[in-house]
Amino acid sequence: MGENRFQTVAVVGAGLVGLGWAIVFARAGLNVRIFDGIADIRSRALARISESLADMKRLGLIGDVDAVLQHLHVVETLPEAVSDADYVQESVLERIDVKMDVCREIASAMRPEAICGSSTSGIPASQFTADIPWRERFLVVHPVNPPHLIPLVELVAAPWTEAGVVALVRKEMQRIGQSPIVINSEIEGFVLNRLQGALLNEAWALYAEGAASLADIDAAVSQGLGRRWSFMGPFETIDLNAPEGIADYARRLAPLYHSIAASRQPERWPDDVVQRAEAERRAALPQDGLAQRSLWRDQRLMELNATFVARAVPTSDRA
Amino acid sequence: MGENRFQTVAVVGAGLVGLGWAIVFARAGLNVRIFDGIADIRSRALARISESLADMKRLGLIGDVDAVLQHLHVVETLPEAVSDADYVQESVLERIDVKMDVCREIASAMRPEAICGSSTSGIPASQFTADIPWRERFLVVHPVNPPHLIPLVELVAAPWTEAGVVALVRKEMQRIGQSPIVINSEIEGFVLNRLQGALLNEAWALYAEGAASLADIDAAVSQGLGRRWSFMGPFETIDLNAPEGIADYARRLAPLYHSIAASRQPERWPDDVVQRAEAERRAALPQDGLAQRSLWRDQRLMELNATFVARAVPTSDRA
Repeated sequence: MGENRFQTVAVVGAGLVGLGWAIVFARAGLNVRIFDGIADIRSRALARISESLADMKRLGLIGDVDAVLQHLHVVETLPEAVSDADYVQESVLERIDVKMDVCREIASAMRPEAICGSSTSGIPASQFTADIPWRERFLVVHPVNPPHLIPLVELVAAPWTEAGVVALVRKEMQRIGQSPIVINSEIEGFVLNRLQGALLNEAWALYAEGAASLADIDAAVSQGLGRRWSFMGPFETIDLNAPEGIADYARRLAPLYHSIAASRQPERWPDDVVQRAEAERRAALPQDGLAQRSLWRDQRLMELNATFVARAVPTSDRA
Repeated sequence: MGENRFQTVAVVGAGLVGLGWAIVFARAGLNVRIFDGIADIRSRALARISESLADMKRLGLIGDVDAVLQHLHVVETLPEAVSDADYVQESVLERIDVKMDVCREIASAMRPEAICGSSTSGIPASQFTADIPWRERFLVVHPVNPPHLIPLVELVAAPWTEAGVVALVRKEMQRIGQSPIVINSEIEGFVLNRLQGALLNEAWALYAEGAASLADIDAAVSQGLGRRWSFMGPFETIDLNAPEGIADYARRLAPLYHSIAASRQPERWPDDVVQRAEAERRAALPQDGLAQRSLWRDQRLMELNATFVARAVPTSDRA
């Protein structure tokens, strides 16, 4: 197990997430075989990847488009993608039955030492790997969208995942330039979406009670909190926000934050409030502008990454 | 009121926040008078500002250090700072009695049309302006630390603040390059710290139950969520994360986020968990390294701002 370095990898499912993964692997110099069950998606995969690579090249995030492209191969069957792979990244539809079928196919085609990670954002591996062969080599490897522009990856083992698998995937993900974190149990929403959810729940409550406009609540993050959080986590942020560090901060501010928490009941986002937010957002950005705005988002993420590349972030900053 | 454009401003209290404000005003070309009750702080103020300006110059955030410095004057008395000011920014110690005394002094020295904003992060203006003259021209103008590197400003009126004051301060803050938002009532923690608190409460709960290490929870934000949040708010983020926008996202994911909220009780950050976090942080960064790391943080923020300056963010992106 310790000797398995990912050299050849399979990407199963070539939607947005799968294609992002393909770029992650290929830019690190790995041989990538891409498969999708839908012929039309397979035939467009390389063209879509090329577009992203051209943007990345322009911002200095990759050296040469062709050098990356030559590591990428679209294949016509799942076994063809998987049979030589050291690692398989599964990114198919977010449905338990679909994941179960595809993982069973992967298991029957993969090499004895191979590992398979699922991109699922919310389904624990134990819910779709319980009855498949080699289940001890399956785990959740959850990226943030898009994977080639945001480095975080959540690793979540099923109870039966072999002990060495998580450590090995963490090491290999780090080696290829991602920022893996390890979640120690199959908690709902893992860590990333629980943190996002906590902030979203408060944002919806503030909006519902009219504390501020939708745009102003967004600005509190994009012009305020998010500036620090783009390079330091919440704990490091408060560690630097009190003269003697994090415990000092907790002494001063824990009562305030407890009082804030106690002021809220867990409430489902009310339908009428969601409709009001939808109307405000569509006034700011019509629905047919969403795709274009997503490209803008990716462009901004690339520019952000270019800053990080430019300053050659030391490894300790990425922990 | 509508004619009041800030040209001469007073900064009362020359700690980190006050000096950051002084830079904000001076770099926008306003005449700034700085006062602090402590002679030693007054005498060091310009030297400390010069250091920040030199860093900003190096990154292209200001053109010329001396051109900014010539707008800054340290004065020896509070009336001298305040008497000609169109606007006064109060940044003294975060204690109700101190704020009350200083605001009374400001009120007795300021011009009839002048406005005074308090930098308080958590004390509503109604708690320290109720009994002072001209209380209708006082409000909270809460920046994020450091104000010259993070543009967000929260505007919070007291019940007696004159209607036009908030609108005017919003316009003037925008004009000088900050990103003001309006909080419609004096809620505890305003908006920024309520959002931060919601995320922190979940982060502490995850750490307490051993879901992930402190460093990994930090990475979930710094390598994941915070990347998008540095230029888009939480609502725009989810608006782009479902094919049909924010209401579509809510349809799909509201049940998950409700379930996450319902899984938590409001709990005060437990002392033993805080001690454990303190030990982990001090192992990563000794207490005598905090000041240096804060300079690193400011440097990163400047680099981030330099990216934004380089791409000349259109006004609509800053809303």
